[in-house]
Amino acid sequence: MSASPSPFRSAKQREADRQAKKQALLEAAVRMFNTRGYHATSLDDVAASLGVSKPTIYHYLGNKENVLSECLRIGLKQLLQAASDARATSGNAAQRLHRFLVGYAKVNLSEFGRCVIRTPDEALGAENLESLLTLKRRVHAAMCDFLKEGMSDGSIAPCDANLMAFTLAGALNWPARWYDPDAGHDPYKTVDAMVENLATGFLPR
Amino acid sequence: MSASPSPFRSAKQREADRQAKKQALLEAAVRMFNTRGYHATSLDDVAASLGVSKPTIYHYLGNKENVLSECLRIGLKQLLQAASDARATSGNAAQRLHRFLVGYAKVNLSEFGRCVIRTPDEALGAENLESLLTLKRRVHAAMCDFLKEGMSDGSIAPCDANLMAFTLAGALNWPARWYDPDAGHDPYKTVDAMVENLATGFLPR
Repeated sequence: MSASPSPFRSAKQREADRQAKKQALLEAAVRMFNTRGYHATSLDDVAASLGVSKPTIYHYLGNKENVLSECLRIGLKQLLQAASDARATSGNAAQRLHRFLVGYAKVNLSEFGRCVIRTPDEALGAENLESLLTLKRRVHAAMCDFLKEGMSDGSIAPCDANLMAFTLAGALNWPARWYDPDAGHDPYKTVDAMVENLATGFLPR
Repeated sequence: MSASPSPFRSAKQREADRQAKKQALLEAAVRMFNTRGYHATSLDDVAASLGVSKPTIYHYLGNKENVLSECLRIGLKQLLQAASDARATSGNAAQRLHRFLVGYAKVNLSEFGRCVIRTPDEALGAENLESLLTLKRRVHAAMCDFLKEGMSDGSIAPCDANLMAFTLAGALNWPARWYDPDAGHDPYKTVDAMVENLATGFLPR
C-alpha cells in the first residue's frame, strides 16, 4: 500500500503550477489583444475572462506592456523555432527556405504570431522594444541566410537577399491582418498557396 | 490703371482657402499618426504644430476619428487612382499589373498610404470602418481584375487571383511598417526590386 500523497506541493509542482497559470494568462491576453486591439484591451477584462483579479495578472506578469512584450517574445521565438526546424531538414536551400516560409506563415496565423504582426512598435517602451527588435532582426537574418545559401547552391535565383527577405516576410505577415480564423478556410492550404506564389512569381514559366 | 482689389474675398477664393487649410491640417495629422501612432497623437499636438487651436481642427475636420478617417480615404483613393492610371496604359495585362503594383507600392510609402497600412481596423468606429472597407474592397478587386485579365491573355500564370492579390498586396503593404523615409534609400528602386521579386519568384527561371 502506497503512502498517501503529501498535502504540501513540492517545489517542482509549485513551479509547474506557476507556469501553467502564467501560460493561461498569456493566452487569454493575446486573444484579447488580437481581437480588440492592444489599446482597447484592459487587464481587468483579461482577468475577468479567467475569473481572476487584476492583481493576479500583475503578480504573474507585471503591467500591460509587460504582458504584451511577453506575448511578442513567445511569437518571435516560435518564428525562430520554425527557422531551426527548417534548417534541420534535407534537400537544397530553396527547399529548406520553402519549409521555413510555410512554418513562418503558420506561426503568423496563430495567436502569438498574429500579435507580433499586429502590434506596432510604438506600443512598446524603449527597453522592451529594443530586446524585441533584436529577436526580429534574428528572424530576418535567418531568412536572408536561407536565400544566400540558395544563391550559392544554385537553387535560388540571384537577388538582393535583404530586399527579397522583406518581400517574402511582408507577403506572409499580412494574413495576420486579414485572415479570419472563423471563416472556415483551411489555413494550411492558404499558406501553401501563398508560398508557392512567392516561389514561382506571377509571370508564366 | 486697374481698380484696387476688393477687400472682400469671393466665394471661390473662400472655398480655395478652406480647402488649403483643410489639406494642411490633414498633412500635419497624418505625419503625426504615422510617427507617433494614432492613439498617442492628440489633436492638440496637431493643432500646435501648425500654430492653430484645436477648435480650428474641429471646425474643418471634426473629431480625431474623423481626421483619421479622412486621411485613410485620401490614401485609399490614391491607390484606386494608381489602378486607373495603370489600366489606361498599353501592353499586356501583366505589364499593366506591374505598373499598378509599382504605383500601389509608391502610394504605400507616402504619408497617406502609410497611414492606410499602419492603421488597424479596430481604430475606427463601425460607420467610418464600413465606408473605408468598401474602398479597400475596390482596391483588392482592381488587383484581381488585372490578374484575371492576365490569365486570359496568357501574360500571367494560372493562379487563384484572390489569394495572389493578397500575396502581392501584403508584400507591398509591409514596407509601410519598416521603410524609413529618412534612411536615404531610393524608395523607387526599392519598389521596383520588390515588384520584380514578385513577378519572377525566388526560384531560378
